[in-house]
Amino acid sequence: VTAGWLIDPSTQGNRRILLASVPSGELREDHFARDEVAVPSPEAGELLCRNLVLSIDPAARAWMSQRTYRAQLSMGEVMAGYTLSQVVAECHSGYAVGDLVFGQGGWQQFSLARAEDVHPVRRRFDLATHMSTLGITGLTAYFGLVRVGAPKPGATVVVSAAAGATGNVVGQLARVIGCRVVGLAGSDAKLGLLTRLGFDAVVNYRDPGLRSALRDACPDGVDLYFDNVGGPVLATVLSLMNIHGCVVCCGAIAGYDHPENATSPPGIPGILVTRRVRMEGFLVHDYEHEWDAAEEILAGHVSRGEIEPLHQVIDGLDNAPKALIGLLAGANVGKCLVAIAGEVSGRAVRRP
Amino acid sequence: VTAGWLIDPSTQGNRRILLASVPSGELREDHFARDEVAVPSPEAGELLCRNLVLSIDPAARAWMSQRTYRAQLSMGEVMAGYTLSQVVAECHSGYAVGDLVFGQGGWQQFSLARAEDVHPVRRRFDLATHMSTLGITGLTAYFGLVRVGAPKPGATVVVSAAAGATGNVVGQLARVIGCRVVGLAGSDAKLGLLTRLGFDAVVNYRDPGLRSALRDACPDGVDLYFDNVGGPVLATVLSLMNIHGCVVCCGAIAGYDHPENATSPPGIPGILVTRRVRMEGFLVHDYEHEWDAAEEILAGHVSRGEIEPLHQVIDGLDNAPKALIGLLAGANVGKCLVAIAGEVSGRAVRRP
Repeated sequence: VTAGWLIDPSTQGNRRILLASVPSGELREDHFARDEVAVPSPEAGELLCRNLVLSIDPAARAWMSQRTYRAQLSMGEVMAGYTLSQVVAECHSGYAVGDLVFGQGGWQQFSLARAEDVHPVRRRFDLATHMSTLGITGLTAYFGLVRVGAPKPGATVVVSAAAGATGNVVGQLARVIGCRVVGLAGSDAKLGLLTRLGFDAVVNYRDPGLRSALRDACPDGVDLYFDNVGGPVLATVLSLMNIHGCVVCCGAIAGYDHPENATSPPGIPGILVTRRVRMEGFLVHDYEHEWDAAEEILAGHVSRGEIEPLHQVIDGLDNAPKALIGLLAGANVGKCLVAIAGEVSGRAVRRP
Repeated sequence: VTAGWLIDPSTQGNRRILLASVPSGELREDHFARDEVAVPSPEAGELLCRNLVLSIDPAARAWMSQRTYRAQLSMGEVMAGYTLSQVVAECHSGYAVGDLVFGQGGWQQFSLARAEDVHPVRRRFDLATHMSTLGITGLTAYFGLVRVGAPKPGATVVVSAAAGATGNVVGQLARVIGCRVVGLAGSDAKLGLLTRLGFDAVVNYRDPGLRSALRDACPDGVDLYFDNVGGPVLATVLSLMNIHGCVVCCGAIAGYDHPENATSPPGIPGILVTRRVRMEGFLVHDYEHEWDAAEEILAGHVSRGEIEPLHQVIDGLDNAPKALIGLLAGANVGKCLVAIAGEVSGRAVRRP
């Protein structure tokens, strides 16, 4: 270890939240367990991170129960999750104690990371904004909309889970690009919020007349659908796609808790041929070498007031399971975050 | 009329095949009717075409029973179809009597066309080759593979209905590009033919162990699937797609005669996200301004022996319904064509 520690590991444990059982159907508290272990020491090339803010993502539900783009979590493993952390100790890592980094620290107070697996964060806003609009979900919105969807000004963009972490940034960014933006959400409160954020039209996806409401909201049809939900809503929007339209497949939250909603839309591939529609899935990690550039762009929009950061911060690591359960039930508005620790400041202490 | 006629319309009728009833399920002879009417006269800007060769396309089955990218055929309407024709009379059209043109003459001996709705054909091969490898299905193969799919050399390309009109050109062209090409077809005779044409591997889609046979044929996974069939085969290939793979959606022949096979593959959109797969539909008509350039490229491959034209020619307009019925049942190899008339030659006659 090449520098002092910002914490004293002899007086400090590492509280963690683990996968206790594999969920099927609705997620519950008893799918999680808690423990506390010793704070680990970094070896060469590693950093010890004190996790300050934890990102709660719908994808975590999928990581718990199936192989996705990452291996399924195993029983007793620390829950996976993105974190904004402060380096509290390091060993020949190229980072300095005190640095802020973004990484996959998981649902725990402290984590080790290899230097190449974290991104440095240059602080310019509150930490929550760095984890919402400038964080993984903001970047997801950026790359999905701008790089996969690439809508033209004037295009009609529909986004589902529009009051969610990714959706709200997609909608606000599409407005900046000059698109007509239609947001789908599940409550009047969310729809009101979207209108305040500048969405041109909003539709409640629980509306039994969803298709006709959406058709009214999209008099020129749908050019781009940014899909966070899959299931029946995807089927409905597909039926309103314009020729040469595009569906950006970002997630399928509708099916995570409710597999009965995970049905594929009818008419695949027929409707794709007839309307020359492109459906394309993507992961924000495929653009990792461009994250810094995209963050700059998003930071500019935030600074100029063109995109309003939207997040809810829940206090305390122990509340992370409740936060994920609520997120899957549609309770949240904007990015769902858990504050694990207050910001560490002050000078490094000698390692005991 | 500005020039003489190549035929004498006073002694010649126009035999036609019409839609008699809207098919649901398997196509039968009694869905068609036949009649004979007078040969029409071209008005300003029009040509009178003597249809020499008629293209029989699976899409015709869809045109009969539903709105697709074109309006549904109405009862009593002449069956729609692509034709290679000779201009036998014209009126200020810019074409000359005797010219060969490609257009949508339909299932009849003679048709009127507006000059802007046909493409001139410069003859360099036999007429059937102009309607197969250089015709609409060859162009479909070209634009779908090269422009929508755009595989890299070394990529594994799977094509369904590989012994069909479009599929055989897709496979041969992918070989020219340097891809590993795996063909799916439904009989040993077709599989043998594909092997002779240079496909690297062939698999019978009727094989109950299709998934494992296909996995064996694609040891590095599937980078590009050129889908002509949809249905269960699409579902199987999707499950073998590589990350960042692409499905070119060209048609869904499996469902035309058998709606029970028209089911969407499971896992949409989840698998598209997880594997970052792009599914994209296209129509060859969207590339109409590039047809001439693509035809030049395909003609070069044919001249150099890199692509072998593959077609079956059935004699006589009256056999067109039987040809389409057989095509949908998987009877044909290569492009299915109907020879309506021998080639008209000789000098123009005075219009009577």
